[in-house]
Amino acid sequence: MSELIEKFGHGGDVWTAEKVLGVPKEQLLDLSANINPLGPPESVWKAIQDSLSAVTAYPDAKARELREVLGAKFGQPTERVLVGNGAAEILYGMMRALRPRAVGLMEPCFSEYAEAAEVVGAEVLSVVTREEEDFAPRVEELLAACEQVDLFVIGQPNNPNGRVLELETLARMADMLARRGGHLVVDEAFLDFVPGVGSLLERLAEYPNVLLLRSMTKFYSIPGLRLGFLLAEKVLVERVEKELAPWGVNALAQAAGIAGLLDVEFERRSLAWLAEERPFLVEGLRRVPGVKVYGGEVNFVLFRCEVPDLQGKLGRQGILIRSCAAYTGLGDGFYRVAVRTRAESERLLGALAAATEGGA
Amino acid sequence: MSELIEKFGHGGDVWTAEKVLGVPKEQLLDLSANINPLGPPESVWKAIQDSLSAVTAYPDAKARELREVLGAKFGQPTERVLVGNGAAEILYGMMRALRPRAVGLMEPCFSEYAEAAEVVGAEVLSVVTREEEDFAPRVEELLAACEQVDLFVIGQPNNPNGRVLELETLARMADMLARRGGHLVVDEAFLDFVPGVGSLLERLAEYPNVLLLRSMTKFYSIPGLRLGFLLAEKVLVERVEKELAPWGVNALAQAAGIAGLLDVEFERRSLAWLAEERPFLVEGLRRVPGVKVYGGEVNFVLFRCEVPDLQGKLGRQGILIRSCAAYTGLGDGFYRVAVRTRAESERLLGALAAATEGGA
Repeated sequence: MSELIEKFGHGGDVWTAEKVLGVPKEQLLDLSANINPLGPPESVWKAIQDSLSAVTAYPDAKARELREVLGAKFGQPTERVLVGNGAAEILYGMMRALRPRAVGLMEPCFSEYAEAAEVVGAEVLSVVTREEEDFAPRVEELLAACEQVDLFVIGQPNNPNGRVLELETLARMADMLARRGGHLVVDEAFLDFVPGVGSLLERLAEYPNVLLLRSMTKFYSIPGLRLGFLLAEKVLVERVEKELAPWGVNALAQAAGIAGLLDVEFERRSLAWLAEERPFLVEGLRRVPGVKVYGGEVNFVLFRCEVPDLQGKLGRQGILIRSCAAYTGLGDGFYRVAVRTRAESERLLGALAAATEGGA
Repeated sequence: MSELIEKFGHGGDVWTAEKVLGVPKEQLLDLSANINPLGPPESVWKAIQDSLSAVTAYPDAKARELREVLGAKFGQPTERVLVGNGAAEILYGMMRALRPRAVGLMEPCFSEYAEAAEVVGAEVLSVVTREEEDFAPRVEELLAACEQVDLFVIGQPNNPNGRVLELETLARMADMLARRGGHLVVDEAFLDFVPGVGSLLERLAEYPNVLLLRSMTKFYSIPGLRLGFLLAEKVLVERVEKELAPWGVNALAQAAGIAGLLDVEFERRSLAWLAEERPFLVEGLRRVPGVKVYGGEVNFVLFRCEVPDLQGKLGRQGILIRSCAAYTGLGDGFYRVAVRTRAESERLLGALAAATEGGA
């Protein structure tokens, strides 16, 4: 097996990939990060271009305009909105503000939840979902865990498998946690891609212990600019904000975010693309001999394939897929790929078919 | 007196200024933030333009190329370099990594030192310098404070007065702190403007308890992009890095930083500008009746003027100066202005002369 491309724990590390695979990073088709291939929309490009001169002044430390646009878009008062230098910054800030002793996780999940918990010295309690159950969550296990932790962090949809929870399950988790003064963080980083999936957003006033974490970098394709936000009760927003260093969100990210949020046409086009291309990719993967595809929704797909060093084999052909070997509850042979354009999916499927035919 | 423009504790808040002064922010000559008027250099603009497409991918979480260029420029191995989303992010990260119980400050100083100390629950011990001594530090007081704290944070040059310390004083402070396992943070955010001023940079290996904090946003005029860095022993770099959320430094800031560091010609021009324009501004201020100018070096000047509501008076003419009323050791009547171009300084001096003649 090759040196681990995910040595820093994440997809999208084309710098390490270039070194390990010997393929120039500009030539890599990166399916290891889950970025909307339709973006950034023209509106966002234009906002960035038009705002370039703003880099010579400090950004608005309070991100007043962006927070207003977010509040209006999500039907929340501005005081319930906090923006951050990517969702990751807010995740770390939440951990520090809430200082949980024990954090519940539904594994496999985004590795930063445990990293951020470790930074504040919290113990992690893992509810591990099972491959043989297609990683479907067992509600009673989630609720039992909520009785033992101060904080539960869960993805809706969950990364890396795209599983979604019933809204009622999230509500019951929040209730259970509330009884003991605990909090529920719902990571909605990929929810823009599946707006039909349930969110506690509309019941935020009822759930003062719920924090909804959002990212704008995946849907609007601006991970290089960094932009995330939090929707939660005013008191929680203030507590988390106190943990963040000032001027965290750069001027271009603020401008890009505002433009993206107002671009309803891009939203429509992106959802139409996913409705078309996710089934194409999933069906294609299912037809590859030796590939097992797991259930889920959203703009990425978890699959299993026992061809040795599949990541290296595809990588040397210029296709970077995410090894999921290091995830709790997964292991060697698990991979995640982003849904991209038709041509890119076809390229992946062709290379995968060749690799599985070729064997070891 | 007007509503406080610095209600969030900082200069450069043109959003609040617009509201308080009734002057569109685009029309404000902002002398309240200390940004090099010559920047960003063409090289940096070009790097930003050339890197725009990089916003669609995650930034290098390890900022490998930028850290190499920084290491080469400052004669340090890469492992002694950490970059952050502005120096402010690193300051907060240092506080968390070092967890001081007591933090020493030489006041007046940048308000974020105390803010960051408060976030980790540290007590602040202030060594207040005296107006009647032109805010010159008393070395014995600094050393005495170093015997009582775990961490001392000091600006070299210091903000808001531009005072500099003897290198030997910093070394003695570091020694004193080292005896009790404490650390010295030297905030060198403005040191690029006065490269002749002493830094412990070359003695970093001797001082494993010293952390040098740098900013690239002032000298290269990119505060809207956010970029700061830390130079310190490997062990400290690793401890601080652990506190920072991943992907903190956006892709454009990384590209801009590399270009700026390599632009030696811009450095030369900027130093020539300051050598010319600081004396012009200082002399001009000294000639305004009722204005007292304090000693210092660097690209900003602290002065006192008892004309009531001077900030409002100049502000309504479109000139934004920094009120220093809220600094410990200062109060009403103290202001800070950035050194800018000749025309901008002339405009300030003209408005100031008119305001002092007009009286209240």
